[in-house]
Order: sequence, then structure tokens, then C-alpha cells
Amino acid sequence: MIISGQYTNGDKIPSVRKTAEMLGVSVTTVKNAYFDLCTDGYIISHEKSGFYVSYSMSQSFSAENDKSTDTILYNMSGGAADADSFDFALWQRYIKSALRQSERLLTYSDVQGEYDLRSAISSYIKEKRNVAAPPDRIVIGAGVYPLLQILSTLLDSNMSVSFPDKSFIQGMSIFEDRGYEVFTRYKDADIIYVSPSHMTRWGDVMPIKRRLELVDYSVKKGSLVIEDDFENEFLYNTKPTPSLYALGKGNVIYIGSFSAMLLPGIRISFMVLTKELSDKFRESSYKFSQTAGKTEQIALARYISDGCINSQTRKIRRLYTQKTRAFSDILKKKLPDANIVIGENQLQIILKADFTAPPDIFEKNGLSVYTESLKDNIITLILSPSAIPNSELENAAELLKKSIF
Amino acid sequence: MIISGQYTNGDKIPSVRKTAEMLGVSVTTVKNAYFDLCTDGYIISHEKSGFYVSYSMSQSFSAENDKSTDTILYNMSGGAADADSFDFALWQRYIKSALRQSERLLTYSDVQGEYDLRSAISSYIKEKRNVAAPPDRIVIGAGVYPLLQILSTLLDSNMSVSFPDKSFIQGMSIFEDRGYEVFTRYKDADIIYVSPSHMTRWGDVMPIKRRLELVDYSVKKGSLVIEDDFENEFLYNTKPTPSLYALGKGNVIYIGSFSAMLLPGIRISFMVLTKELSDKFRESSYKFSQTAGKTEQIALARYISDGCINSQTRKIRRLYTQKTRAFSDILKKKLPDANIVIGENQLQIILKADFTAPPDIFEKNGLSVYTESLKDNIITLILSPSAIPNSELENAAELLKKSIF
Repeated sequence: MIISGQYTNGDKIPSVRKTAEMLGVSVTTVKNAYFDLCTDGYIISHEKSGFYVSYSMSQSFSAENDKSTDTILYNMSGGAADADSFDFALWQRYIKSALRQSERLLTYSDVQGEYDLRSAISSYIKEKRNVAAPPDRIVIGAGVYPLLQILSTLLDSNMSVSFPDKSFIQGMSIFEDRGYEVFTRYKDADIIYVSPSHMTRWGDVMPIKRRLELVDYSVKKGSLVIEDDFENEFLYNTKPTPSLYALGKGNVIYIGSFSAMLLPGIRISFMVLTKELSDKFRESSYKFSQTAGKTEQIALARYISDGCINSQTRKIRRLYTQKTRAFSDILKKKLPDANIVIGENQLQIILKADFTAPPDIFEKNGLSVYTESLKDNIITLILSPSAIPNSELENAAELLKKSIF
Repeated sequence: MIISGQYTNGDKIPSVRKTAEMLGVSVTTVKNAYFDLCTDGYIISHEKSGFYVSYSMSQSFSAENDKSTDTILYNMSGGAADADSFDFALWQRYIKSALRQSERLLTYSDVQGEYDLRSAISSYIKEKRNVAAPPDRIVIGAGVYPLLQILSTLLDSNMSVSFPDKSFIQGMSIFEDRGYEVFTRYKDADIIYVSPSHMTRWGDVMPIKRRLELVDYSVKKGSLVIEDDFENEFLYNTKPTPSLYALGKGNVIYIGSFSAMLLPGIRISFMVLTKELSDKFRESSYKFSQTAGKTEQIALARYISDGCINSQTRKIRRLYTQKTRAFSDILKKKLPDANIVIGENQLQIILKADFTAPPDIFEKNGLSVYTESLKDNIITLILSPSAIPNSELENAAELLKKSIF
């Protein structure tokens, strides 16, 4: 039971007498067993108080499972935000105001999501992405993952799904686990999953021409497009990129997320279903459950309708794209022989350099980086500097230089 | 597009010239069409500013989908809480303190759930339910629904699952949708799903003898038990009810939830996996995503470790069981001929009475009730008075009396 973790960290274990009773063996047998456990270091005895699981022992059993991130000084592998990117005090005011609506918090959330949030999102995506959909076609969820779980239940698992971005393993698994045929080509699929604003790890953006082609193709073939509009908010200095939803003919499901705009810790995403699928959702709503917390839903509804989301978007766009450029400039100076390019969506830097060090050198130097490829002594890294404070870009670049040489 | 809801509530629709261009038809054709839409009331024209979707029209299209709950005065069908049951100001302090940990909120939550919350839960369930499990065997999720989604992915869908409580349709659907064989008997199943503290809608509690039998049976048959320990916190004046997990031999998955203890709007549940399944979870964790919000996870971890959960449990138990008794007493006085019994777990009242009115009379009188059966002019209702303020129990009972006669 100690090894399996049922008793841990200084837990008191049953007395000798109790254990003897429980197991139906003699007190002497248990005493001998406890003695062995003591000498092996599993338990320690406190005089007159009984036996306890040794702290060091249970630590060693659980330690292997707790990946320590203490040693990472700079996270350049994405998925984290800069502390300056978010106005915590402002968000706290909205949370506080939501918690004052105690009457609403006394009941479970609408399975589809709070109406005021769906309504705010409806106006927001109409304005920003020309995605025209009433609140009753919008479904809220705690991230894209639970939304795809719902979607894969609503759709027919005899269909095939294509994921041109092979790195979205989570999405692929959801459909695969339900028996869909999943592949990584574009065409010849009943369902096409795309992130037009973040098509590859290095942030390629789908050009308008290809968007139009995809929409045309899907209409002709009768296929459904799932448009994950991930990171579209950052595309300000590229050409305008209309959403596939706006270009489509009612055969596009639009998915959006607030984690990247606000905080990774805030889990609120949404999807716009077709009329047919939203009817099906309501018919089978007894199957589902709302995953997003009600307090944050209420807070976000006001945050959006008060327009805070717009200033936040502008702020984060400016902050992150400037940071990408600044970091790229520093790297170019420090590593004049490396090939350094900024990704199309202005958030990633692709760095290609000669490299002969052991591959774990980055981690040893306190850097978390994503290695796209390493062969013939040439390494290609994809770097997301978003989470590095501006004041530390120089230090982070220096560590990177040191690691590469 | 107005009917399908792509344009709604006072939205500006494209100008005559734009629409003509888009559709490749003449301006006159569009003008005629817009004129028809105006006379039919779909759109209205504002001089010099263009055409807008008529407010009343888009309302009527979406109204049918928004079930109004305005007319419900008293919810006796469960799933809601009393405003006095929760200390909002205290919770707000914990949320505020969580929001101050801005560094933590800048990254995504651990897919398994925040470590400090899993650690707090580990101690809490050890103390309360003798469920001994280290934090690395605990998985957090935004409710039981996403946890069962994960579980049904980890287990083998060639297995059979039994749900003795037929009313848990959501759970049954999750397993059914993944291809498991699902049935509603106890035995002869590879997986047995039970809520020992809330076995039926009217709150039957599984006696110890049957708990031991079930555990014995499952060990002998090699089956897995999923113990949803829903509402165990309320069983204070019945006999002590050990958890199946504590009685089991490592073949029980324990599920607990905080929504009923705190607020329905707070979506945090957890499951304790077996050693084997928790290893499998970590191996395939790339497939999953944490659904519970990080702020609330951080807040709840402190709330539990500070002991607030204990006083909250005592408070809510006292409040709800006293209320059930009080409401039952009032009903007995008002309806002396009815058969009125309090359910075993002290939260529900089973009311059986002569009834000849139309079945929708309750709703018409502003009551939400659950009708267990209605035949031969005898109605059986299951009433959960939890959400009715103490000061209104008398009024609610009066309305119920009025409805039944």
C-alpha cells in the first residue's frame, strides 16, 4: 500500500493489533512485518504514538511522476504568456462583479453556455471575423478539447476527417478514438480540420487564394470544414485574412478561444455550429454538460461587451509582435551565421544553425525550446519568445548562443 | 440568412449596391427584394444609413430556443442551491488570492490538474472517506462528465458497463457512444458504476452489507467498480457508510465533486485512478486537456487546506437536512392525506397523493417538480427543497397544495 501510494508522506498506518485483526493473523506476525518495514525504511515508529510512513520513502515513489520545471529559466516553446500582457486588476474587477451575482451561481450553467456570454461572442465574432451566428448556434466549452468531444459525438463516426496540421495530436486522437477515419491530407475527406491562421508550428498563414479554393472544394464535395481560428488576432501586418466561415456556404464550423488572448489559465472556447448541428445538440443536450466555470463565463461576457477584449487584443498584439522582432534582431547580432526568419503570424522565430552539442544542452542551460529538426549537424529551432520578459530577451539570447556553440 | 440567424437583432445588412455586386445581379433586382423584405417585416430601412434586421423579427426566430425560466417561482426539482448555503465573501477572498498568483496563471494548467489541488484533495479524502491515494493518482476535471470522457478512453471499449441507476443518462451515453456494452443490471459486467450514497432519485443509500457484497463480487469477478461518491457528505444521521474504495482491493475508481458542496456554478470534480490507469493516463496525456479553470483550482486548493471545506460541509449539511425536515413537516400539515416520506439521504421528500389535475398544473403555478410516476390518479413526486429560502417554505408548500387539489 505504501508502494502503490495508498499511504503516503507521514501517514499513520494501522496499529499492530488492528492490522492483525483486519488480516486475521497473529500479533507476532504483524510485529515482525512492521519491524522489517522499519529496517527497510518504509515506515518509522514514534514512541507511544504508532507507525508512520517514512517521508523520504513516499517522496521517492511519487517523485518520478512530478516533472520539475524549476530549472527552466526561459520558456521559448510556446503555450505561456508574459505577465505584462494581461491586466490582472481589471479582470479581478469583472470576476468580483460576477461573484456578486450570487443568484446565478446557485444553479448549474446552461449546458450550451451562459446566454449573455454567447450573445457577447455572437456580436464580437460578427464584428471581428464577419462570422454571423445567433447565440443559439454557439456552444461554450472549457477549451477546444471538450468542444471537439461534443462535435465528434454529434457527427457521424463513419466519416473521415483530415488534419493537415499533423501536430494537432489531441484533436486527431479525439476523432480516432471514436472510430473516425483520420488522415493528414487535405482532400478526399468528409470533414476538413484547419487552423488557417496557424497552419504549421512555425505559424504559416493560409493565403486568401487557398482559402477560396478550400471553401469551393468543400462545397463541391459536400464536406464540412472545421475552422479553428487560433491566433488570427495576431495577423495585423499581413494581408487581411477573411474567415473561412464568412467565405463558406453554411458548411463551416467556426472555433475560437480566449486563452491566448487573455490567460492560458482561463479556459473558455466556443464553437459556432451549423443550424442542423445546433438543433442536434439541443435534442441530445441531456448527453452533455457545460465544462466552463460559470463565474468566468459571466465575467467574460461583461469583459467582451464592455469592449475590454478589444484593447486587450491590441495590447497583446503589439507586445508579442514587437517582442518577436526584438528577439529576432538580438539573435541575428549574436548568431550572425545562423539563418533567422520570423514566422508569418509574427509570433515564432525559425532559427537554423550549425550544431554539434548534445541535444539536451538547451534544457541543461535552463531553456525550453522546440526542436523542429536536427540532422547533418544542422539544427532547426522554433522559438516563441512571448513568455520572456522584455528586460530578459538579451540574457535569453545569450543562453541560446551559449547552447548552440 | 435572417431566418438561419446569420443576421440578427438590428444588424446592418449589406447595401443594395454591395449585394448586387456580390450576387452578380442588377441593382434593381436587389432593390425589389429589399422592398419585399421590408414589407414582410424582416428588415427596416433607416434613411441615409441603410437596412437593418428588424428587432422583432430576429427575436421571434430565436425565442423558441431560449426556454424562459422567469415563471418558475420555486425550483423543487434539484440541482440548485440556497443563497445562504455559501459564503460568497470568503470564496471571493480565495479567488482574489489566486488571481494574485499571476505567474501561475500565465501557463496552461497541468493536464492532470494543479498539483496543490490534487495534494489537498488527497489529504481531504483520506481523512473523510479513508480513500488513500497520492496526488499522482488523482485527475481533476470540470465536472464528472469530462472525467468519464477520459475514463472511457483509458478503458477498453470491448468491455461492458452496468449502471444500476438508470437515471444517469449522461454517464450511460458517454460509454455507449464509445461502443461499450451498457446495461442497467448490477452483475455480469466488467465495469460497475454506482453512487452508493445516492442510488436512486429519491436518495436511497447502499447499506454496508451490500457494499461488502459488491466489493467481494467485483474482486471475485475481476470487475472494476466506479464509485461516484455523490452526496455522501449529507449522510450524517444514518449509519456510517464506508466508501467502496476503502473496502475494495484496489479495483475501485473513486469519483468526487465539489459542485454540490460549494456552488453548482463551480465546476471541479476529481477521480482517483488505479495505479495502472494513472500510468496509462500519463502515457497518453497528450490526448487530454485540463478542463477546470486554473484560478478556481488554485483557490479551491487553499480553501480545502485551510479547512474551510469542513465548516462549509457542516453548514450545508445542517441547512439542507433541517430544511428537508421543516418542509416535510409543513407538507404533512397542509396535505394530511398524502403519504410523505423523507429520502434516506435527507435531501429529498417523496410525496404520494391523489391527483386529478392536468400534469402541467405545477409549472403553471410556478413550481418546478420532478414527477416520479402518475397513474390511477395517484401522483408520486420527488421534491428537493434545498433551493427554497427558509422564509418561503410555507409559500412553496401552499402552492404545491393548491396544485395538487
